[in-house]
Amino acid sequence: MKNNSTYPVRIYYEDTDAGGVVYHARYLHFFERARTEFLREKGFSQNEIIQQQGIAFVVKQMEIDFRYPARLDDLLIDETTLVEVKNASLVFTQKLIQENKLYCSAIVKVACVNINLMKPTSLPQEIKRLLKDEKP
Amino acid sequence: MKNNSTYPVRIYYEDTDAGGVVYHARYLHFFERARTEFLREKGFSQNEIIQQQGIAFVVKQMEIDFRYPARLDDLLIDETTLVEVKNASLVFTQKLIQENKLYCSAIVKVACVNINLMKPTSLPQEIKRLLKDEKP
Amino acid sequence: MKNNSTYPVRIYYEDTDAGGVVYHARYLHFFERARTEFLREKGFSQNEIIQQQGIAFVVKQMEIDFRYPARLDDLLIDETTLVEVKNASLVFTQKLIQENKLYCSAIVKVACVNINLMKPTSLPQEIKRLLKDEKP
Amino acid sequence: MKNNSTYPVRIYYEDTDAGGVVYHARYLHFFERARTEFLREKGFSQNEIIQQQGIAFVVKQMEIDFRYPARLDDLLIDETTLVEVKNASLVFTQKLIQENKLYCSAIVKVACVNINLMKPTSLPQEIKRLLKDEKP
Repeated sequence: MKNNSTYPVRIYYEDTDAGGVVYHARYLHFFERARTEFLREKGFSQNEIIQQQGIAFVVKQMEIDFRYPARLDDLLIDETTLVEVKNASLVFTQKLIQENKLYCSAIVKVACVNINLMKPTSLPQEIKRLLKDEKP
Repeated sequence: MKNNSTYPVRIYYEDTDAGGVVYHARYLHFFERARTEFLREKGFSQNEIIQQQGIAFVVKQMEIDFRYPARLDDLLIDETTLVEVKNASLVFTQKLIQENKLYCSAIVKVACVNINLMKPTSLPQEIKRLLKDEKP
Repeated sequence: MKNNSTYPVRIYYEDTDAGGVVYHARYLHFFERARTEFLREKGFSQNEIIQQQGIAFVVKQMEIDFRYPARLDDLLIDETTLVEVKNASLVFTQKLIQENKLYCSAIVKVACVNINLMKPTSLPQEIKRLLKDEKP
Repeated sequence: MKNNSTYPVRIYYEDTDAGGVVYHARYLHFFERARTEFLREKGFSQNEIIQQQGIAFVVKQMEIDFRYPARLDDLLIDETTLVEVKNASLVFTQKLIQENKLYCSAIVKVACVNINLMKPTSLPQEIKRLLKDEKP
């Protein structure tokens, strides 16, 4: 089971603030892009899951360490690892790194949610299989 | 017909970039908040219009002049004027001002859109009346 | 010592995503605005602190619970409490509430940073006094 | 003189709003990223220009047509063309396209600004040469 992936993040003006560094909430955007690409590599798009199955992955909890401030033009690498597949949720660890230096890390708990009811629901078997790289 | 309103905008870190001033795209957020409040003052919420009538107001064209850069902690006043109510669109002029100084101005054309078809549609009579402050 | 404050947050289109609810990272923006207003109530602006003392408050750690999804037009109230004043950092708890329902809560550790060196530094005595509402 | 470039833009949740499509102000972010990469291809970074020469490129005027709404997971291609190099400003045209369909287009006037004075200033000869691909 390949349970991790990497994703590059270039820092643009939009990501920075008047402190001269990346605005702290932006790291959550980078993490979300990277989780999306992790899922895409696993073979499905979030848009299709919403349209076809009426479920979405919703962030429920995050613990974030803002270690070192990234700056304009930096090129960070996100390392996303899926560490746990539960019945109705996923747990990821994510890191943003540049030249072996850790800029930001997070533990992210994502719930599987029925988007019409906006309530937690079990992960569909097909998605569980894809996430665990099991054969159908 | 009262066709204008004012709305205050405080500048926070989230609005600024590494140039030390407000990131240019943020002014469009401020304008959108102010148009929303203009419509709310007229007696309806955009959320209700979407839910109940299946229509949304969608920005189609903007001409924007970024005159003077706003900074952290500034308190701008948005002045929104509805200058035209067409069959399927509205035209607003909007200004962001602080102490008689013009920071940013825009002409904004907003279309009335059927959100299921994502196609232009006529403004419902009731909304036209509200916008023109006419009695039903 | 008054160590808390409240701050209203209206939800606009800019805050929402295609899931129909507030994009998770936006809650960090709301928390940051509220901390800024908390500090402003205490009698100083972050912009002045940067300009005059060369220090900034930088978020170092966050634990966030996304409890319930806010939607377009919602009006949340942020409740910010300063729970700890350390030598070189502050700890806040923050909640976003609407009609007694908790939408999002966070524990936020903020470091005092020398912005030229981008290194942690002690809180100036004057700021400590202001935060603790002590007489000079 | 090669005066254009292309740049891909993937649409993530952060880019969308409760209307189910891309929030209009986000297109300005995409355009800004693309102009940054255009300049990088020409051989210089905006960060270096700020640090070394104390000048920044600041958006002064935009005319934007929001033609067709992009959605989650879309992959747009930005086409940026530098159409004019004036003494103290640049004019770009930019388009966002997917499968031959035009989603958004803009004319963007960018001024060269002394960041200490925040006043317009002439483009340094070296930058003019790079932009025009002339030999030094």
